[in-house]
Amino acid sequence: MKKIYFKNLQEYLGKEICIEGFVDNIRKLQFVTFIIVRDSTGKIQVTIEKNDNNQNLLKIVESLTSESTVKIIGKLQKNEKVKLNGFELIPNSIVITSKSEEDLPLNFKNSKSALLDTRLNYRFLDLRNEKNLLMFKVQTCLINAMRKFVIDNNFIEIHTPKIISAASESGSDVFEVNYFNKKAYLAQSPQFYKQMAMASGFERVFEIAPAFRAENSNSYRHTTEFTSFDIEISYIDSLEELMDFEEDLFIAGLSAVKEKYGTQIKELFDVDIIVPTKPFPRIKLQELYTTLEKNYGFKMNYEDVGDMNAESEKLASKYVKEKYGHEFVFITDFSAKKRAFYHKRDNGIPLGADLIWKGCETTTLALREHRYEILLKQAKEKGLGEDIKFYLEFFKYGCPPHGGFAIGIDRITMLLLETGSLKETMYIFRGPSRLNP
Amino acid sequence: MKKIYFKNLQEYLGKEICIEGFVDNIRKLQFVTFIIVRDSTGKIQVTIEKNDNNQNLLKIVESLTSESTVKIIGKLQKNEKVKLNGFELIPNSIVITSKSEEDLPLNFKNSKSALLDTRLNYRFLDLRNEKNLLMFKVQTCLINAMRKFVIDNNFIEIHTPKIISAASESGSDVFEVNYFNKKAYLAQSPQFYKQMAMASGFERVFEIAPAFRAENSNSYRHTTEFTSFDIEISYIDSLEELMDFEEDLFIAGLSAVKEKYGTQIKELFDVDIIVPTKPFPRIKLQELYTTLEKNYGFKMNYEDVGDMNAESEKLASKYVKEKYGHEFVFITDFSAKKRAFYHKRDNGIPLGADLIWKGCETTTLALREHRYEILLKQAKEKGLGEDIKFYLEFFKYGCPPHGGFAIGIDRITMLLLETGSLKETMYIFRGPSRLNP
Repeated sequence: MKKIYFKNLQEYLGKEICIEGFVDNIRKLQFVTFIIVRDSTGKIQVTIEKNDNNQNLLKIVESLTSESTVKIIGKLQKNEKVKLNGFELIPNSIVITSKSEEDLPLNFKNSKSALLDTRLNYRFLDLRNEKNLLMFKVQTCLINAMRKFVIDNNFIEIHTPKIISAASESGSDVFEVNYFNKKAYLAQSPQFYKQMAMASGFERVFEIAPAFRAENSNSYRHTTEFTSFDIEISYIDSLEELMDFEEDLFIAGLSAVKEKYGTQIKELFDVDIIVPTKPFPRIKLQELYTTLEKNYGFKMNYEDVGDMNAESEKLASKYVKEKYGHEFVFITDFSAKKRAFYHKRDNGIPLGADLIWKGCETTTLALREHRYEILLKQAKEKGLGEDIKFYLEFFKYGCPPHGGFAIGIDRITMLLLETGSLKETMYIFRGPSRLNP
Repeated sequence: MKKIYFKNLQEYLGKEICIEGFVDNIRKLQFVTFIIVRDSTGKIQVTIEKNDNNQNLLKIVESLTSESTVKIIGKLQKNEKVKLNGFELIPNSIVITSKSEEDLPLNFKNSKSALLDTRLNYRFLDLRNEKNLLMFKVQTCLINAMRKFVIDNNFIEIHTPKIISAASESGSDVFEVNYFNKKAYLAQSPQFYKQMAMASGFERVFEIAPAFRAENSNSYRHTTEFTSFDIEISYIDSLEELMDFEEDLFIAGLSAVKEKYGTQIKELFDVDIIVPTKPFPRIKLQELYTTLEKNYGFKMNYEDVGDMNAESEKLASKYVKEKYGHEFVFITDFSAKKRAFYHKRDNGIPLGADLIWKGCETTTLALREHRYEILLKQAKEKGLGEDIKFYLEFFKYGCPPHGGFAIGIDRITMLLLETGSLKETMYIFRGPSRLNP
């Protein structure tokens, strides 16, 4: 007999069912024992009255501990006195399928009861918290809807190598790998390899895969290993078209999340899922500087001029929220000095943008320079040479004009649910001083 | 004006359209120039007659080389003389969006014209071969259908860390990473981390991500980096149930491929896509040994007894094909000595199976030992200790009975299309002596 999902209880009223799950709670009263069982979709009360018929069952649950797992077969009935959901299961048989130790090293039900570091040490227990479970359901739904959107739009899925022979873009911030006693590196992004697909005539590709950054940073939004949703599109004519595509992608994802989990998210995270309207506001960087200075007295510090930083991202979101009631904003017209050599430029200005959501950069979009000579020149300006020779080859034998972007899926999940940090959001967080579990 | 897909030409008959693609071929005749343009979905002939009106166009195409990319606007008309598909485009404007060098280092249209190594060096050109393009469309379709199947069955998608602090299962065959001057490793599989999700109450999870093996092997089916489709399911009662699930998973994937690409695959690969019937044949290992000896005089070599090897996999497929007309076979009842410590056993026999398809192992399935004491004992038998302490913790505080498996998606694509080797199948192949491009 197969277990049912607790969210579907109403379908089984009056029937014999099998349930399996964790023991959420046990209450032993004078005349009755209540066991609350939890599965990935809800909870149910199991009621065992103290009478002669139930001697065997009572014996089994005598030593039962919370967080053990059980398999119970019984009859589902209505009982209005049951506050949980009005249902109770009257068991015929109980099997303890695994037994938990009496004392847990973490009270996962109250995430404030332990330091974040302790919670991360016991992440396998921390994830039992209902918010965390919902978070991964939401992420699954979000990414699946976005992936469906690209597949419906003729994208080919690729899997690019993560072990590479040369440090991808800059040489700094890469992890070194011992590859059969040769030096190799972990890919910081699939940038070059997804662009390769354009040279190969794949036209539209996507990849969802880990990316690695050896950055010694401990901010709320940095990690050494994250999952990147990469997109690359041939025959893109303008940055506008690329931004328009990303708008549709976010709308597809957020619509699905709102429909399926909007209510639960409101309940557990107190966050309203807002499906954004098109077009998202667009602001040129210089214009933004002027606006932020006028409105908030903000002045960009010297070394970041031509770029955004954490503070200006926060204020940009504040501004568009006040002015347009929008959660998203594209910032365009960055300085070429602050952007990668492969961004296409128009009169020296990169044809790219950053998408800011809830005060945090989520994406850098850009058209790519696909003309060999210009690309070579731009690479040389940034001091790049031998390491990217294989990449420059892609542009010698015909390569469509193209553009693309990458979204950190951990980061957008963090922003969506407003969890506050990647440590809270990632299945298992990795940072400079955290390599466990 | 946006480019149309060439597969949709018939929708645009008599209309002005925009096409973009690679120049597949140019033929300059006395009174007319033909350009064949190729996109990711087909080809079209562009016809330019030599007359005064076309002087500008003819000047543009004067220096046009094959494999350059073009953007052409013109009127689509029928012309029965055009063997390609009966359509031709009469251009109004032609823009060369990228220009290819005259001589390509690889004749990608004829994959026999170059050594495999040369083709891999120029993989970005090799992938322009129509078979390769179709291969990645097919893989996208296959994996997407399988992923849809698991998501429709309530699976949560996880992204487990690839940089780990301890060598996952055995300590051999792992790549070492310099992690801020600490020793770390690349995950050989997400095994421990997907099982962690079971302890966390996620019930059903999947992951599609790279896995890394530092094996110094050069066989047709080995690579140092591959993409693994991992599945783990709680509250699984029997191996039978797990095999049944994998049958449904393959049927979902192969049905989608057959429907969408069956005809094209037959045309380009000369392979018939067969959607398998349920149940797949199941054979116990000892029984298989007996059968293979009786039918083919095959005797398993001493060191592999209790296990399968490449030769027995080939013969097992031959046998089930002859006997049952089936492409798939589950082999069960391996020796515990040949299986991982975390496989659950029944009377000493692992509750696991290998799924063989077309003479090659595609999956190891198994129920997992979820009882802490037994797991600890089995780990010790295999000489495992400190490194897996974090993993053993998962089983102390309640953990549902569970089972799962992993499928190498490169490998099943290779088998599906009968490409003969992973070098032909992977987007970019990685082996002991190949770290480029």
